[in-house]
Amino acid sequence: MNGSTTGRPTLGILGGGQLARMLALAARPLDIDCVVLEPNGPLCPAAPVAEVITGMFDDRNSLEELVRRCDVVTVELEAIPPAALEWLARYLPVRPGVEAVRASQDRLLEKQLLRSFGIATAPFNDEVPDDAAAIVKTRRGGYDGRGQIRAANGPERHAAMRQLTDPIVEGLVPFRRELSIVAARSVEGDIRCYPMVENVHVDGILRETVAPADVTDAQRVSGDWIATTMLDRLGYVGVLGIELFDVDGSLMVNEFAPRVHNSGHWTIEGAVTSQFEQHVRAVMGFPLGDPSPRGVSVMLNAIGTVPDTREVLGVPGCHMHAYGKEDRPGRKVGHATVVADDWGQLEQRRSMLRPLFGMVQLPLAAR
Amino acid sequence: MNGSTTGRPTLGILGGGQLARMLALAARPLDIDCVVLEPNGPLCPAAPVAEVITGMFDDRNSLEELVRRCDVVTVELEAIPPAALEWLARYLPVRPGVEAVRASQDRLLEKQLLRSFGIATAPFNDEVPDDAAAIVKTRRGGYDGRGQIRAANGPERHAAMRQLTDPIVEGLVPFRRELSIVAARSVEGDIRCYPMVENVHVDGILRETVAPADVTDAQRVSGDWIATTMLDRLGYVGVLGIELFDVDGSLMVNEFAPRVHNSGHWTIEGAVTSQFEQHVRAVMGFPLGDPSPRGVSVMLNAIGTVPDTREVLGVPGCHMHAYGKEDRPGRKVGHATVVADDWGQLEQRRSMLRPLFGMVQLPLAAR
Repeated sequence: MNGSTTGRPTLGILGGGQLARMLALAARPLDIDCVVLEPNGPLCPAAPVAEVITGMFDDRNSLEELVRRCDVVTVELEAIPPAALEWLARYLPVRPGVEAVRASQDRLLEKQLLRSFGIATAPFNDEVPDDAAAIVKTRRGGYDGRGQIRAANGPERHAAMRQLTDPIVEGLVPFRRELSIVAARSVEGDIRCYPMVENVHVDGILRETVAPADVTDAQRVSGDWIATTMLDRLGYVGVLGIELFDVDGSLMVNEFAPRVHNSGHWTIEGAVTSQFEQHVRAVMGFPLGDPSPRGVSVMLNAIGTVPDTREVLGVPGCHMHAYGKEDRPGRKVGHATVVADDWGQLEQRRSMLRPLFGMVQLPLAAR
Repeated sequence: MNGSTTGRPTLGILGGGQLARMLALAARPLDIDCVVLEPNGPLCPAAPVAEVITGMFDDRNSLEELVRRCDVVTVELEAIPPAALEWLARYLPVRPGVEAVRASQDRLLEKQLLRSFGIATAPFNDEVPDDAAAIVKTRRGGYDGRGQIRAANGPERHAAMRQLTDPIVEGLVPFRRELSIVAARSVEGDIRCYPMVENVHVDGILRETVAPADVTDAQRVSGDWIATTMLDRLGYVGVLGIELFDVDGSLMVNEFAPRVHNSGHWTIEGAVTSQFEQHVRAVMGFPLGDPSPRGVSVMLNAIGTVPDTREVLGVPGCHMHAYGKEDRPGRKVGHATVVADDWGQLEQRRSMLRPLFGMVQLPLAAR
């Protein structure tokens, strides 16, 4: 028999990182307990706000414990063995489902799935001319820019393909900027899209998100269509993050994540309903909340080390989120979101924050 | 030596109820641990998000453990023995200080303190004519309308005074409405006031808060002056809640609470910085956040039982906060806040919520 030992509805989360931590913080006011399954155990970011089962994601005893203690299971990262999700799904709802998770783990499956929905992606494999510049990526397991090699020509590409296991070749896309959209679908099939946002990556790691992005009506509708199509066709339940390229005004999907997304962190302060509450609402079978933005926001990631709290909190309208992780180069250890009433005020506040987050001083794109 | 066992800054909280729960939820993103001292132990509302020391507030071993584990101590309720606070203050900062807590426990001291600051209160004791109607209250320990007897005349008053231990007589104040103001002072002496709000009490229990209240400029300045004077004269650090009567447009203090306040719960969604984050910022020595409202809000208390989550979350712009407490008549077990862009939209949403919270259907006062 499923169900919590506390008498409260209980959400199981595969993974106990910062996303699980923020999910658990959003679940608590709804009186929902969270239990995380986390290989790294009780020092994980979610531990202060959730129960922790220490174990590998495919460890049968751990999965059985999740089934015993939880009403619903979700994921906070895509690197979950599909077999584990399939096993769990025999006993309780797994939201989102295994199909979305499996496709998100494999750049080839991911592109094939998107194409089958009529959604544009970068050209890949045979579609890329032999002598054209390309990016060679591992099909599985690369993230935050790892497992990727740029190849200027055919010979470089062949060398790169020998270096990586199970490679996929992606054509270079002359994108103007990176956008993303976060959206949610409920058990009943209701869909809510947050406004599209603009992202700045450095060395393959997300550093900054500006919300909402300055997009045309056509782009806005196109983004909503992409998100809605994916959610609907997958019969998805929960929050989905979709990374996009803006190529001469057209949108192309780079990749998607079957979970709450770093580029949606701004929603905690910058939207009526945060993506974390939205995901909890969706997977627990509740009605979705309003995704409308409140003012304009910028989110900055803290990479490697958390800036001084006193200085960050001294910036007007700024909120700090430290994840309780040890410092390590390249690691996401926290973020800050600053909300403002208008773009001028936002730019002023962003320029105060950027040096604290090791970002060079650059103005927002002209609006 | 003070300091946490986790290496993180640690805030001790005397009391582990819903206020401690919401303080701990606000402290977590700042990577601050909370340790609560709570006589009722590990089933208290704060337990899922804080460490719990089970013990009475004057138990020396428990207080010693707080000193060992914490960097700063605060309170979530006023009924803390002043001697315990005095003992703690020898070893670590106790914020707010014992003077404010002591005065808030005793209706006579409270009024005398307010008068010494030049702040108006209801007439009390000798100031109330012998034959006038009055309310007789216990000096200590009454709350949510308990320990109060209405007396229509002199003989009734004398009977009431014999019924209550250590009574105080308060003149009846012909107030038009009940208002309150929540404000904070930092270690450096910076002060931030939230906008004044209007409260509806039923049977002495707060049922509804509308934020911001519709007040005149004179009332707004008067409210800010009262809060600022109290914070400044007390050398207060943290959030202070002040209940006011609107008597023909003039403000009179009914009572104050040396802590985050039920009439400030709307700030979680309805202000740039919630009162809980503000209190954590203040007592931990960080800069204060922006108390500006975002849109207009109404907060409804769930008394006795938590309404159906699905129905509450179905109201647009609504957020639910259940405290994880067992149902009991008259008990505050949760609240909901609904935020809107304007009063018309707010009224519409409030009218959807009120039946769920057992409130009769009444329009907002004309605005």
